[in-house]
Amino acid sequence: MITGKPIKIVAMGTYLPKKVSSSEIEDRYGIPSGWSEKYSGVSNRHMVTTESNGFMGARAAEEVLSKANMGLDQIDMLLSAGGTFDYPLPNQASIIKHELKDGALYDFPAIDIDSTCLSFVASLDFASRLLDGKSLKTILIVSAEISSKGLNTKNWETTTLFGDGAAAAIVQYDEESKSLFIRGIQKTYSVGTYHTWIQGGGNQYFFKDNPYDEKLHSFKMDGKKLLRLAKEKIPLFVEDLFRDLDINIEEVDVIVPHQASKFGMKIFDSLYSFKKGQVKTSLALYGNCIAASIPLTLSDCIDSGEVKRGDLCLLIGTSAGFSIGGILFKY
Amino acid sequence: MITGKPIKIVAMGTYLPKKVSSSEIEDRYGIPSGWSEKYSGVSNRHMVTTESNGFMGARAAEEVLSKANMGLDQIDMLLSAGGTFDYPLPNQASIIKHELKDGALYDFPAIDIDSTCLSFVASLDFASRLLDGKSLKTILIVSAEISSKGLNTKNWETTTLFGDGAAAAIVQYDEESKSLFIRGIQKTYSVGTYHTWIQGGGNQYFFKDNPYDEKLHSFKMDGKKLLRLAKEKIPLFVEDLFRDLDINIEEVDVIVPHQASKFGMKIFDSLYSFKKGQVKTSLALYGNCIAASIPLTLSDCIDSGEVKRGDLCLLIGTSAGFSIGGILFKY
Repeated sequence: MITGKPIKIVAMGTYLPKKVSSSEIEDRYGIPSGWSEKYSGVSNRHMVTTESNGFMGARAAEEVLSKANMGLDQIDMLLSAGGTFDYPLPNQASIIKHELKDGALYDFPAIDIDSTCLSFVASLDFASRLLDGKSLKTILIVSAEISSKGLNTKNWETTTLFGDGAAAAIVQYDEESKSLFIRGIQKTYSVGTYHTWIQGGGNQYFFKDNPYDEKLHSFKMDGKKLLRLAKEKIPLFVEDLFRDLDINIEEVDVIVPHQASKFGMKIFDSLYSFKKGQVKTSLALYGNCIAASIPLTLSDCIDSGEVKRGDLCLLIGTSAGFSIGGILFKY
Repeated sequence: MITGKPIKIVAMGTYLPKKVSSSEIEDRYGIPSGWSEKYSGVSNRHMVTTESNGFMGARAAEEVLSKANMGLDQIDMLLSAGGTFDYPLPNQASIIKHELKDGALYDFPAIDIDSTCLSFVASLDFASRLLDGKSLKTILIVSAEISSKGLNTKNWETTTLFGDGAAAAIVQYDEESKSLFIRGIQKTYSVGTYHTWIQGGGNQYFFKDNPYDEKLHSFKMDGKKLLRLAKEKIPLFVEDLFRDLDINIEEVDVIVPHQASKFGMKIFDSLYSFKKGQVKTSLALYGNCIAASIPLTLSDCIDSGEVKRGDLCLLIGTSAGFSIGGILFKY
């Protein structure tokens, strides 16, 4: 018997900037033809031309409002769930709200939640706990990420892996619905804090004394250490997530993992006996879009009918920090 | 009859870097002697020498753990509540957890909440809603802010106003306690999104194409527009916060406003008839420490006995975005 809180993802929306194929990336940076698909598993990604995080987030939000047939008057809170931002100040949620058509007509709060790649999962987890059907009925979550500016183009692994994009969800407390939020868990393992790192651009390497340097200001990861840590911690995390539930991870209808990397997702697959099509991926289409990866993939699955009302869904992933997060719900 | 949720601030801790007097600042930047106290209301502020956000946050967290006589094994979640950060990635909470003595021995999640100057208030509001006494019993909130690096030293108003510092709180679900969280509200008014702004350092003015420029990479505010907006919105906000409660703002025992600026706090005072000592200030001692201002002030009031168990307290302030937030609780 599965129990939970009557929280429903009403709808989802997305925004993707210009598509850029892997052969274009390979040509541009002198990477051997076919390297991207072989090592990163990415055929295409999307990259901003003129778009900002705020612009993409607002367009994704407007799409989800339109799909849900709802107006901003029904939104009680906007959570911006991401690791990248337009400006150091104000927070990204305020920028997204400002970019929304008629956003200035409403005074719902605009607050950022940053758990890097897991920001959407953490925000959905928070939303499912915050929503009470009284003071908070409906929360709009937006993940808008630009990774393409913070890449070291001499590092093929990251240059071919990452993409830009945005996704949004409307989450509602709805006692009439059969949707349920069952359990959400986030954990941070500090042994891996610096396995993924952008050093420059904050107070530690402040711009004034540290002019732009591709290495200093780009995303770095120690892939081997990350994979080893993920392999060690994921099974323990999943055990905790499913403890005392009547089901195990292999019985979940649909699993949307963070599209971290080809090898990261292989490790996850290798730990369990999943059925074909049970674990969803968008890595080939979009690359790793930081916190927008999970909601972009989930939104596509809803649109295609691969996720139907009543399906048991698991969103799960790893993030810089190093963290693992998961949320189990009946869509 | 005041009702609420049995949420208790168990204790608070702080960390302050080196004290810097206003006369030192005035000497350093060619500002007339006495200007700081007269126009900013700031006599001293503290400024980092070698400290990072993570270091200050960890020390404030260790102080609150020691005051509460608690260990990290009792912490279920760490929220970093602030607008400034050591690195663009990972999130600040992960850095603070990593800097904590024995932080790596525990796997509680480390998540950032950014509502700029209101980050502590928003985090306390979120914590009071998230804590259920079951899956979440105790949350550690840390605000660690470095403002001194992002100041345009040609702008006297901001150079004399801001300070660095950190404060932390342990918040617990405790049915045995007489502490109560009564109501928290956050609102964002997008007409003021760009009244406070740091333009450079995010994706919109990416470092690569925008080398350090004191104007571009520093905090800017349109003081007049901000004060006008605050004056218009605060009374409406306060009306909402106290709606259907048996008390009004003038009957609250202790009010800790955000230490935004001398004139901002004057406006707030002028809207109501407060008793002497009812509204707390630390502006002269610490300046505006962004999100750390409210918890630094509250922590001092607890230490000095100006806030006692059973006192009705209001934390209230404005932030970049433009937002107003408030939380009413029985300490």
